Amino acid sequence: MATHASCTLSRALLYSPSLHRHNRDSATNPPPLSFISTTNLKTTSVLARAAISRRRYLTSPEFLVRAASVNSVERTTDSELVEKSVNTIRFLAIDAVEKANSGHPGLPMGCAPLGHILFDEILRYNPKNTYWFNRDRFLLSAGHGCMLHYALLHLAGYDSIKEEDLRAFRQWGSVTPGHPENFETPGIEVTTGPLGQGIANAVGLALSEKHLAARFNRPGFEIVDHYTYVILGDGCQMEGISNEACSLAGHLGLGKLIAFYDDNHISIDGNTEIAFTESVESRFEALGWHVIWVKNGNLGYDDIRMAIKEAKAVKDKPSLIKITTTIGYGSPNKANSYSVHGSALGAKEVDATRKNLGWSHEPFHVPEDVKRHWSRHVTEGTILEAEWNAKFAEYDKKYGKEAAELRSIISGQLPADWEKALPTYTPESPADATRNLSQQCLNALAKVLPGLLGGSADLASSNMTLMKSFGDFQKDIPEERNVRFGVREHGMGAICNGIALHSPGLIPYGATFFVFTDYMRAAIRLSALSQAGVIYVMTHDSIGLGEDGPTHQPIEHLASFRAMPNILMLRPADGTETAAAYKVAVLNRKRPSILALSRQKLPQLPGTSVEGVEKGGYIISDNSSHNKPDLILIGTGSELEIAAKAADKLRKEGKTVRVVSLVSWELFDEQSDAYKESVLPDSVTARVSIEAGSTFGWQKIIGEKGKAIGIDRFGASSPASRIYKELGITVDAVTEAAKALC
Amino acid sequence: MATHASCTLSRALLYSPSLHRHNRDSATNPPPLSFISTTNLKTTSVLARAAISRRRYLTSPEFLVRAASVNSVERTTDSELVEKSVNTIRFLAIDAVEKANSGHPGLPMGCAPLGHILFDEILRYNPKNTYWFNRDRFLLSAGHGCMLHYALLHLAGYDSIKEEDLRAFRQWGSVTPGHPENFETPGIEVTTGPLGQGIANAVGLALSEKHLAARFNRPGFEIVDHYTYVILGDGCQMEGISNEACSLAGHLGLGKLIAFYDDNHISIDGNTEIAFTESVESRFEALGWHVIWVKNGNLGYDDIRMAIKEAKAVKDKPSLIKITTTIGYGSPNKANSYSVHGSALGAKEVDATRKNLGWSHEPFHVPEDVKRHWSRHVTEGTILEAEWNAKFAEYDKKYGKEAAELRSIISGQLPADWEKALPTYTPESPADATRNLSQQCLNALAKVLPGLLGGSADLASSNMTLMKSFGDFQKDIPEERNVRFGVREHGMGAICNGIALHSPGLIPYGATFFVFTDYMRAAIRLSALSQAGVIYVMTHDSIGLGEDGPTHQPIEHLASFRAMPNILMLRPADGTETAAAYKVAVLNRKRPSILALSRQKLPQLPGTSVEGVEKGGYIISDNSSHNKPDLILIGTGSELEIAAKAADKLRKEGKTVRVVSLVSWELFDEQSDAYKESVLPDSVTARVSIEAGSTFGWQKIIGEKGKAIGIDRFGASSPASRIYKELGITVDAVTEAAKALC
Repeated sequence: MATHASCTLSRALLYSPSLHRHNRDSATNPPPLSFISTTNLKTTSVLARAAISRRRYLTSPEFLVRAASVNSVERTTDSELVEKSVNTIRFLAIDAVEKANSGHPGLPMGCAPLGHILFDEILRYNPKNTYWFNRDRFLLSAGHGCMLHYALLHLAGYDSIKEEDLRAFRQWGSVTPGHPENFETPGIEVTTGPLGQGIANAVGLALSEKHLAARFNRPGFEIVDHYTYVILGDGCQMEGISNEACSLAGHLGLGKLIAFYDDNHISIDGNTEIAFTESVESRFEALGWHVIWVKNGNLGYDDIRMAIKEAKAVKDKPSLIKITTTIGYGSPNKANSYSVHGSALGAKEVDATRKNLGWSHEPFHVPEDVKRHWSRHVTEGTILEAEWNAKFAEYDKKYGKEAAELRSIISGQLPADWEKALPTYTPESPADATRNLSQQCLNALAKVLPGLLGGSADLASSNMTLMKSFGDFQKDIPEERNVRFGVREHGMGAICNGIALHSPGLIPYGATFFVFTDYMRAAIRLSALSQAGVIYVMTHDSIGLGEDGPTHQPIEHLASFRAMPNILMLRPADGTETAAAYKVAVLNRKRPSILALSRQKLPQLPGTSVEGVEKGGYIISDNSSHNKPDLILIGTGSELEIAAKAADKLRKEGKTVRVVSLVSWELFDEQSDAYKESVLPDSVTARVSIEAGSTFGWQKIIGEKGKAIGIDRFGASSPASRIYKELGITVDAVTEAAKALC
Repeated sequence: MATHASCTLSRALLYSPSLHRHNRDSATNPPPLSFISTTNLKTTSVLARAAISRRRYLTSPEFLVRAASVNSVERTTDSELVEKSVNTIRFLAIDAVEKANSGHPGLPMGCAPLGHILFDEILRYNPKNTYWFNRDRFLLSAGHGCMLHYALLHLAGYDSIKEEDLRAFRQWGSVTPGHPENFETPGIEVTTGPLGQGIANAVGLALSEKHLAARFNRPGFEIVDHYTYVILGDGCQMEGISNEACSLAGHLGLGKLIAFYDDNHISIDGNTEIAFTESVESRFEALGWHVIWVKNGNLGYDDIRMAIKEAKAVKDKPSLIKITTTIGYGSPNKANSYSVHGSALGAKEVDATRKNLGWSHEPFHVPEDVKRHWSRHVTEGTILEAEWNAKFAEYDKKYGKEAAELRSIISGQLPADWEKALPTYTPESPADATRNLSQQCLNALAKVLPGLLGGSADLASSNMTLMKSFGDFQKDIPEERNVRFGVREHGMGAICNGIALHSPGLIPYGATFFVFTDYMRAAIRLSALSQAGVIYVMTHDSIGLGEDGPTHQPIEHLASFRAMPNILMLRPADGTETAAAYKVAVLNRKRPSILALSRQKLPQLPGTSVEGVEKGGYIISDNSSHNKPDLILIGTGSELEIAAKAADKLRKEGKTVRVVSLVSWELFDEQSDAYKESVLPDSVTARVSIEAGSTFGWQKIIGEKGKAIGIDRFGASSPASRIYKELGITVDAVTEAAKALC
């Protein structure tokens, strides 16, 4: 029989089995938002009825029929039915992978017991309102095992996953793609697959919950109150991002984050012994987590239950439940081997597994008693949400201001006229670095956007990202909104994704030097893919940072993000453009934005405008008529000043010159052909671009005859003005190029 | 007084101070390649003379004069002189940062005692031959503190750092840039600055030493025998990459890796308490390291010495010496604060620090006694190398084959005709995925390139990177050449950089899915910047991977690397091109290469050639004459087949069509204008490109009138053929575009 053990003696004593038993009811039914299981319904019926009487919906005939049906389906500890349910999960995964002839059956087969317990006994959710705000969040960081999640959503009654969807696993246009995609499938919280991202997203979700709970809960009104559960595997554990995020989770004491480490000893290259022999438990204890080990994750159902209860009882630390499972459990010839990780079992082994587990059903079959057992979740979920709605209505009466603010975070509706808070600038405003102007914007927005929170990866004083009206989000003051991410860029990105995907109205920002987007690129790509409207505040955006040298000077970074789908790469040139960039970034809630900002001081340029930035590219000055300048100079960010100066010089020499700010290529691409022609007329081929970065991609803008001035080598360590001169990013270079063209 | 403590009781007992004393001589003077300090010279003079008699150089008059001078300068434990030396280091750093008005004085001031001990008492090096193969390696992972390293190289007598170089700190063209750059400054092993990279590079260097020692050492001939020392700070510790690399270092038992964790509690955002409260010691113990804590790194010189001795005595584990220091030690008003981390102290505080530390000298002054004390290192280094050369000559006599192989690794000279080992293909060769063809190349090269070693980040069986003639590099069989990196892409990249920079003839390769270059981009950029000729084997290079979906399908990656300086992005189309890509990659020892390889089967195409690939772009077929085809179709990798098929179709319809393989844009850019004109004549504007990736950048190739067929959105989960069709990467799309053009 399996045993269940804490990792340290003291903890084992503190949370002894007898204590567990004693706490059982209160742990599974914590006030005031109870987990409504049918057994609990009986004992709490007075309370439940009191809640019901308060809400019209709950007295509707429709509801009463549903509620009555609840009592007819018992939550069961009948081990035979549980095992049947677990095998249902296993075979839904096996059958789907087999039909697709592609996928990962091993994890679902091994984690089916855990999955059953989580979705049938632990998680609070409403299958009929996937996005109910106060739901527990569940993430599969080991995203390749997504058939586990799809099978569970199917059993739990989510409309998003019907049998035909399981049958369409990994096919074009299905809602059951090869890795979980939040934007494809209601019920999936975040996009996972790239290892380690999900656990870091989970930190972001748990951080959001802790923050919102501290800000909005009031005595008797625990309006924000959910757990975040995540399953991660050996692969996730090896990734640096998971250590970054988990170190921060430990520091912040995210007690409602419960991570299950599927310890199956198998990764793609075989037994993890060949590359991964560290003590994960000790590492997590070092990171400040509570650690529990369930040694028999295959059969130890009660151990799993008890571990979750223990984890929930630890309020001041996140918990890691290491759960030792057999990958591909049930497959007589492939279990516990690499071959079951990422390939279909094959018809023969599927048959053998059916025989071995006593499963005589057709593919995709859910036995009636299993179906009936799971059917109660629809009603339970409806009750859960209704109770919460009733509670929220009371809260609204008592704490109207807080309720309104929270409602805007839940709905994502921005406050009216929020953008009017953004600072405005004129050409007479003092010259300043766009990183400083960015700070003015952030501080202005902090006052009007209730969901704005974020910070820097240990460069707050360089990135200029502190919101002065708030303190630091810390373990004991999580209501504050400045997050100190530490030197953990990759973790920061994925945590921001988790925050953005927690609630539509949460607007996270993360900051570092622009060059260090290289550290977090996988997370930024997932912002773009999973439609998480994170704002990336990236300062020190060119050789203009000077002495720190080539390791710190971005060159190829602008091009690299311009090539990435569904992301806005913005490089504002002054205060007006910086404020406009923030306006764009805040409005784009399903598309992340990167703001590339200067370290060095820049003048406020005549002609820049918010409306122009919103179009991505626009004319800031022109002395031509009839859309026929002799020459077009195009710049971005800190080099727009150079373009403007060169234009002045060339105009003095009699040329008609247009200066275009191309602050966001993506936004410009989206404009009408007529607008684009009005800015960059086809007939004007004399074009010079200037940008302190790679010229890669600029041919699209300047055409075959144009000249791109940029930097196609690494930078150098030197005062900035000297590097600009040595690398030819100068007014003279522009005027010379211009003269060669017209 | 400081105390020195192991982290666990058992270890403290095992390595008690008395044991330390007992082992002192053998630890500082391990046979057979002794650390020649002057005190040791006296006791080992008979041996030393015996060695001298064997080598002509050592009997030269020049040498004897030097050797005689050695005895006149005692290695000292005179605490006054040591402190003077330490303050010299501090003020060289203070003065250089002050003169530049830019830089990081805090770390050098805090770590000067450690720096002194390492370079004066511990490290084995030859200042007059920076690249002596068997030198101990020293890395500053906290690269911003580079003035520490520059000051030490200056004192130790390296020609690369003269006083004028210190005065030119962070100036254009100096050898003392703002972060350490191996390609600028002899004596700097690797480029650091981006945090966490240096410690991971150190793992690569230590791994190289362990590998070469196991392969080449013979009884009595420890030809390969050096330590790798690295200083890392809080920032490095927070980065995920350091956990990845250190987990692998623990797994591999890299006993000659000694890392000093400069525990100064200050990072840019202030006290590390705000974001970093994990137990680093416990984490490293969990990772399988030996951990020592020196509590007084400011004054505890003997504690530092003893800790190093203890670390050296532990042969089967890497050691972490946590050394608690005060950042900016000596500055009365700024020590132990953020303000001393990354800015000049300012004239007033420099004066106050001079007063506080009793330093009355002019800026950049090295007192005579300090100078004299350090001067012995030139002679000692010469002797060290001479002894080693003598030993190597003996080894060569006895083990000629091994010596020749090792010599080629040391020199970087490739064996004659090595490239003839590469497989050849004809159009009749069976169709295959380029990842499989890559494996054939790797296995062919494994037999002829003694320095080839590498592996995959847990995807060996997908990336096809196992060298079948070798086993796995493991703790107890480090002579093998397949490295199992685990799911640690970022660590893998930085470790490969360390391997490449250990010896010119080591040719490391690292593999994962192409999309996961996002996880390791910071390390890849450093390969490019620091001229480390790593080969990145990146398979599953497009939507052609199919069902795994958009998280696994690269889109913008080709463009993102084409924009990066000093890196070769190669996308071969078949066997011939894959073999050619390997030829290019192996020959480019100062430029990394990325090979993008297909998961799916591809035909062997008529017309592909090695010579063509070496030029980056070339014609694979053409039915036109006089360099005037109606149309040019351009493809790369898996889409070259589509271009070829479209050409066949169009030719049947009477068009003259040229098909160009643009396998490497960088190589093509380097060709003469005449060659480029012969492939892509200006006069032919009807051009269609096809590539299963972003079209970003293609305008440069196809011109204003051309058509780029590509994918400017994320992919999808589905069988590959369906995605190709749905996203329009088809023969029909090419022929339609072609017909619209001509």
